[in-house]
Amino acid sequence: MGNFGFSDLRVVQPYAPSFREARSAVGASELLAKAKQYDDLAGAIADCNLVVGTTSARERELQQSLRFLPDAAPLILKRFPSGRAALLFGSEKHGLSNHDLSHCHWLMRIPTSEGLPSMNLGQAVAICLYELVRTRSKLGRAPKDRSAKSSELERITLLLVDLLEASGYISSSSQAQAGQKVRRLIRRLAISPQDAETVLGMLRQIQWKLRSSAPR
Amino acid sequence: MGNFGFSDLRVVQPYAPSFREARSAVGASELLAKAKQYDDLAGAIADCNLVVGTTSARERELQQSLRFLPDAAPLILKRFPSGRAALLFGSEKHGLSNHDLSHCHWLMRIPTSEGLPSMNLGQAVAICLYELVRTRSKLGRAPKDRSAKSSELERITLLLVDLLEASGYISSSSQAQAGQKVRRLIRRLAISPQDAETVLGMLRQIQWKLRSSAPR
Repeated sequence: MGNFGFSDLRVVQPYAPSFREARSAVGASELLAKAKQYDDLAGAIADCNLVVGTTSARERELQQSLRFLPDAAPLILKRFPSGRAALLFGSEKHGLSNHDLSHCHWLMRIPTSEGLPSMNLGQAVAICLYELVRTRSKLGRAPKDRSAKSSELERITLLLVDLLEASGYISSSSQAQAGQKVRRLIRRLAISPQDAETVLGMLRQIQWKLRSSAPR
Repeated sequence: MGNFGFSDLRVVQPYAPSFREARSAVGASELLAKAKQYDDLAGAIADCNLVVGTTSARERELQQSLRFLPDAAPLILKRFPSGRAALLFGSEKHGLSNHDLSHCHWLMRIPTSEGLPSMNLGQAVAICLYELVRTRSKLGRAPKDRSAKSSELERITLLLVDLLEASGYISSSSQAQAGQKVRRLIRRLAISPQDAETVLGMLRQIQWKLRSSAPR
C-alpha cells in the first residue's frame, strides 16, 4: 500500500494476536498504526460508493459479474477522486465468503495461471494497487461519482427483504440465501445517491401501506 | 512465478540455510525444487539473450537506460519465444550491486511512490511477472451488452407506479409527472434481462399482497 500511495487500511475481525504483532515494511509503520478495525464488513464499507471483491474464482459459481484486473482498474478509477472505492480481500486461506461477496458491486480477479490461480495475499494486494496506479497515469480527469454509499444500499436491501417476506415472495426457510440474492441485485443496479433516497422513500411507503392494511 | 506460468528460477550464491529451508506456496514446490544455483551472475545468465535489471533507482546514478515497467514489458516480450530473457532481482536489503547492474542490457523500475520506492522482493517479482502476462495477452473481454429491453423496463415502470399509487406515495393529482419520474429512475438503474424478470416477480408479489390485504 505504501509503495503505491494508498493509506486507508481497514481490517474486519483480525486475529488479534497476529494483528497486534504485525510489523510493517520500512516506512509504512504509520499506515499500519492507523489501520481501522471493524466487527463486520458492513461497518467497514459503510462510507464506500463502490466495493469490489477479489477472488481466484475457481471453486464456486459466482453470482456477480467478474472482471479481469486490467479491465477492472479503469472502472474503479472512475469513482475517484470524488467517490470512495473499497478493494476487498479475503483471508489467505479461505478468501471471501459468499456473504462477503454479496456486499460487493462486482468482482475481479488477477489473470493467474489455471494451474495455480490462488495468490499470496500481500502479492495480490500489491498487484491490484500497481494496476490502479498504472491505469491512473493513463486516464484523464475522472467523471464525478454518482453511486450511493454502501450504507444506503444496505438500507434499501433490508427494507426490500422485509417487504418480500411480508408479501410471501421470500419464505422464512430460504431467508438467508434470499437476503444475499437481494443484496447482490441491489449492488448491480447502479443507484445514485439521489435515486437511493427516492427508492428508500418508495419502499417505506409501500411497507407502511402493507403493514397498515394487513389483517391483525 | 507459479501464479503467472514462469518456471525457470535461478539463484546466485543463495544463503544456504535459508535456501534449503525455503518453503514454496501450495502447488509451486516443483518450481523451487528445480531452481538452479550458481556461483556467480555471469554463469546464471550465460544463455540469456536479454538481461533486465530491476532497481528502485534512488541512491545511485545509473549508467544504463531505465524504463518504467509498463514500457519495459513490451520490449522484453519481443525476445520471446525465440530468445531467452532474464529478469534480475537483487537482495531485499541491498538490491543489485553496480557489478550486477553492469551485466544488464538495461534497467527497469516499478512506478512506486517517491516516499516509499523500495518494494518487498516477492511483491516486486509478482508485479513484474503480472505485467508481462498482462502485456502478452489482453485477457479481458469487452463486456457484453446486458441491458433489459425497453418493453421490460416499461413493465417494471407501470407495476411500480401502480404500487406507489396504491400505497399513497403518488397522489392522483401528480400522477402523470410521477409516472415520468419513475420511468426515468428505472432507466437509470442498469437492469439486466435476468434482473428485470426478478424485479418484476418481486413487484408482482408485493402488488398481490397489497391488494389481497387491502380493506374493500
